[in-house]
Amino acid sequence: MLAIAPVLDHLDANLNQSLERLYELLRIRSISTDPAFAADCRKAAEWLVADLKSIGFEASVRDTTGHPMVVAHHEGPSPDAPHVLFYGHYDVQPVDPLNLWEDDPFDPKLKELSPGRKVITGRGSSDDKGQLMLFVEACRAYKAVHGKLPCKVSILFEGEEESGSPSLKPFLDANSEELKADFAMVCDTGMWDRTTPAICVGLRGLVGEEIVVHAANRDLHSGEFGGAAANPIRILAKVLADMHDDTGRVTIPGFYDGVEETPTQVLKSWESLGETTESFLGEVGLSIPSGEKGRSVLELTWARPTAEFNGITGGYTGEGFKTVIAAKASAKVSFRLVHKQDPDKIRAAFRDFVRARIPADCSVEFHEHGGSPAIQLSYDSPFLIRAQQALTDEWDKPAVTIAMGGSIPIVGDFQNFLGMESLLVGFALVDDRIHSPNEKYDLSSFRGGQRSWARILDALTR
Amino acid sequence: MLAIAPVLDHLDANLNQSLERLYELLRIRSISTDPAFAADCRKAAEWLVADLKSIGFEASVRDTTGHPMVVAHHEGPSPDAPHVLFYGHYDVQPVDPLNLWEDDPFDPKLKELSPGRKVITGRGSSDDKGQLMLFVEACRAYKAVHGKLPCKVSILFEGEEESGSPSLKPFLDANSEELKADFAMVCDTGMWDRTTPAICVGLRGLVGEEIVVHAANRDLHSGEFGGAAANPIRILAKVLADMHDDTGRVTIPGFYDGVEETPTQVLKSWESLGETTESFLGEVGLSIPSGEKGRSVLELTWARPTAEFNGITGGYTGEGFKTVIAAKASAKVSFRLVHKQDPDKIRAAFRDFVRARIPADCSVEFHEHGGSPAIQLSYDSPFLIRAQQALTDEWDKPAVTIAMGGSIPIVGDFQNFLGMESLLVGFALVDDRIHSPNEKYDLSSFRGGQRSWARILDALTR
Repeated sequence: MLAIAPVLDHLDANLNQSLERLYELLRIRSISTDPAFAADCRKAAEWLVADLKSIGFEASVRDTTGHPMVVAHHEGPSPDAPHVLFYGHYDVQPVDPLNLWEDDPFDPKLKELSPGRKVITGRGSSDDKGQLMLFVEACRAYKAVHGKLPCKVSILFEGEEESGSPSLKPFLDANSEELKADFAMVCDTGMWDRTTPAICVGLRGLVGEEIVVHAANRDLHSGEFGGAAANPIRILAKVLADMHDDTGRVTIPGFYDGVEETPTQVLKSWESLGETTESFLGEVGLSIPSGEKGRSVLELTWARPTAEFNGITGGYTGEGFKTVIAAKASAKVSFRLVHKQDPDKIRAAFRDFVRARIPADCSVEFHEHGGSPAIQLSYDSPFLIRAQQALTDEWDKPAVTIAMGGSIPIVGDFQNFLGMESLLVGFALVDDRIHSPNEKYDLSSFRGGQRSWARILDALTR
Repeated sequence: MLAIAPVLDHLDANLNQSLERLYELLRIRSISTDPAFAADCRKAAEWLVADLKSIGFEASVRDTTGHPMVVAHHEGPSPDAPHVLFYGHYDVQPVDPLNLWEDDPFDPKLKELSPGRKVITGRGSSDDKGQLMLFVEACRAYKAVHGKLPCKVSILFEGEEESGSPSLKPFLDANSEELKADFAMVCDTGMWDRTTPAICVGLRGLVGEEIVVHAANRDLHSGEFGGAAANPIRILAKVLADMHDDTGRVTIPGFYDGVEETPTQVLKSWESLGETTESFLGEVGLSIPSGEKGRSVLELTWARPTAEFNGITGGYTGEGFKTVIAAKASAKVSFRLVHKQDPDKIRAAFRDFVRARIPADCSVEFHEHGGSPAIQLSYDSPFLIRAQQALTDEWDKPAVTIAMGGSIPIVGDFQNFLGMESLLVGFALVDDRIHSPNEKYDLSSFRGGQRSWARILDALTR
C-alpha cells in the first residue's frame, strides 16, 4: 500500500507543469481523418512514448496500416498486484470552420469562461488528450513520490478513434496476449455535472437493418394503376407503424427477451440527478417522451431498448409532384439493445416480422448494418464499487452510476478480443463542445481528474 | 338530314389522298417543348388553317405567348342545328432517342406490322395528328358530297399539349363566347382493342398534397435521444398506415361522400371486356389487387377513389447507415376522385386526419399540389347514346363505355371555362407507342376513325 495523500499533494503542487505538458501535446495537430496531418499524428505518438519512458514505462510506437498505436507497460509493486489497461486516443477532430474559433485551436491556454471558472482551450483539450493525460499525470506523481505504481499498468493510446478505428481490431487481435489485463479503464466519458463525478455502467447495443420493399417491376402511373397495383410505400408504412403499440412498446415477438428491469435503487439515484422530461427534451424543442409510457427519459435512453427509423425513401421526392406508384421503397431501421438482448435473435425476429407483412406478390430484401450487444457492468462488481468510493472521496459528493444510450465501440472490442470488462470514467462536461469550434476542458476537471485517477489506482489495491 | 352512305363511300374512295394529307402534316417537326422547333409549330398551325380554309372553314392562326392556336368555324345546315367544338393538338413529343426508331420519325409511310396489319409510321401518327385529321377528313367528305356539314362545327387545335398547355386556360377564358358550343368532342383517347370502339365516360379527379412532419428542432443522435425523442418517420408511417383499413378502404372520415356505385349493367359490360386481374397486373409483375376487396381491377382503376403515396423521404437515405433521428420527414400523397367527390372537402378531411395523429410537441405543414374533381358523363346523356350507336354501326360490334383512371385536363377546362361536357372518342391502340420511338397508327383506325366521325356527326343531327 502506497500512501495516497502525498501523491495528491504532489499533483496539486505540480499542476502548472502538468498543464504545460498537456499544452505541448495539444499543439501537435494530430487530425487523423486528414492525410495531410499523418506526420503530426506520428509526432503525437512519439511525444507520448517519450513522456511515458520518462516516468519509467516501457513504451513504444507501434506501426499499423494507418496511424500508429502507443503501447506502454509498467510493472506493479509485486507480481500478484492487479493489472489494468488504460485506453485513450491522441488523435483529434478537424477544426473547420476555423473562423468560428475564438482562440487558436492549436495554441492552448487558460481562459476565464465565467467568473471563477477557468478552462483549457483548444482542439483535443477534452476529447481526448486532456482526459488521457490525467492518468499519465497520476502515474507520474506516484513515481515521483513512491518510486513505483500501486498496480501493474498497461497503456494503449490509439490514433484513429476520430476516423473509424480501422486498425484497432486487427491490432487487438494480434496483440491480445500483451494487452490482456484484469480490466480496462476507458477515459472518454464525462461527469454528470461540474461537481458530480460519474461512472458509466451501461452502454446500449445496436442492430442496424435496411429493408427494401419491391412491388411492381417498374414505376407506374397512379392514374392508370392506382387502386389496383400494390404501393411499396404503403406496405412499408404499415410495417413501420406496426412496430410500436400505443404504449410505445416494440411489438416484435421476443424483442424484450433478456431485458431486465432496472434496480429500484438505481432508478432512485437517477431520479436524484434532477434530469426531467422538460430539461432533457426541452433543449431540442420537444416535450413528450416517445418511448414506453411511465418511464423517465433517463431510463428510456439509458436502460430501455428501442426501435428507431433512421431513414426512409421511396417514389418521387423532388420539388413539385409526380403521380407515380414507385417500384420500391426502403427504410433504415436500428434497434438499441440493453442487458442480454441478443443482436442475432433481434435481427431474425425483425425480419420475420417484416416478411409477415409483405403481400404475396411483393418481396423484401434485407441489408445488414452491424450488430453489437449491450455492455452492462454489474452493479456489485468490486472494482466498480471501489472506483465509485474513490470518486466520492475526491469530489466530496456521491459518484453516480450512469448509463449511455449510445455505444463506445472500444468497450465491446475489449470484451470481444481481450475478454475484459471496462471501467468508464471521465471528466468531460456536456458543454465541452467536442468535435465543434471552441472545444475546452474545465480546469476543475483537469485538477480533480488527475487526483481521481490517483485515488482510483489506490482504491484498486486495497 | 344529309345522307351518310355516300359520305362513307367518298371517304373510302379517297383514302389515299387523306393519307397523303396526313403525311404532309406529319412531316412538319412540331415539337412544342423544344424552342428550336417553334417555327415548325407555327408551320403546322398554318398548314391546318390552309387545309381547313380549303374546305370552307373560316379558319385562323391565333397567337398566344407560346405556340399559336388554330381556331376554325363552319356554319350548320340551319341556324338551329347543334353546335359542336372539336379539340385536338398539332404538337408532338420529341423523338429522342433517335437511334431506337426503325423508320424516320418525320418521313411517314405505310408499313406492314404483321401479316394483314398495316400501320402509319411516324411521330404524331397516333398522338395526335392522325386522330385530329380523321375529323377533318370526315368534314371534307361531307362538303364534297353534300356541300355542307350536318351541324355547326367549331375546331380548336392546340400547339402546346405536350408541353403543359400554358396558354390554354387564358385562351379559353379570353375566347369563351367564340368557343362555347353545345358540347365538345375530344379525340385523344383510344379503342378498347383493334376491333372494339370505345367512348370514355369517366375520368378520375385528383387531389395532391405534400405533408412535412416536424419533430425536434435538429437532427438527433439515436443513441443519445432514442426512446425519448419523437421520430417524425415513425409519426409519418403511422399517419400513412392508418389511411387504409384491412379491406383496402380509405379510412378518412367523409372520403366516400359523393361516390356512387357503378350501375350493374356497366359493371357487366366491363366484365365482358375480358380484362382480368392476371392480364392487368401480370404485365407489371403483380397479381393481387391492392384496393377495396371484391372489386375488379377495371372498377378499381376506373370508378373507385384511391389514396396513393407517391413519395416519401426522411432521415439518412444515402449509402451505409447513420444512427440519426431526423428533425422532419415528408410524404407526397394523392387522391384519385370519382363522381361527386369534392376536392376541397377531401383535402380538408385529409388534413384533419393527419393533424389528429401528430403528437402535441410536433407539428405538420401542408403543401397543396393541385385539385380537380372527377369528370363523369351521364350514361343516359342523348349525345352519348347516339355516338355509341354510330360507333356500333361502323365497327359492327357494340361500342363500350369505358373510363380512365387518370385525367385529361382539357376536359375539365372545357367544363370550367366553357360550361361544356365532352365526348371522348378516339381510335388509338394500346400498342401505338405514343411518346416513344416507333410511334404508329393502325390503318384500320385511320379508315374506321374517319368513317366513325362522319357517322357520329350524322347521328347527332337525327
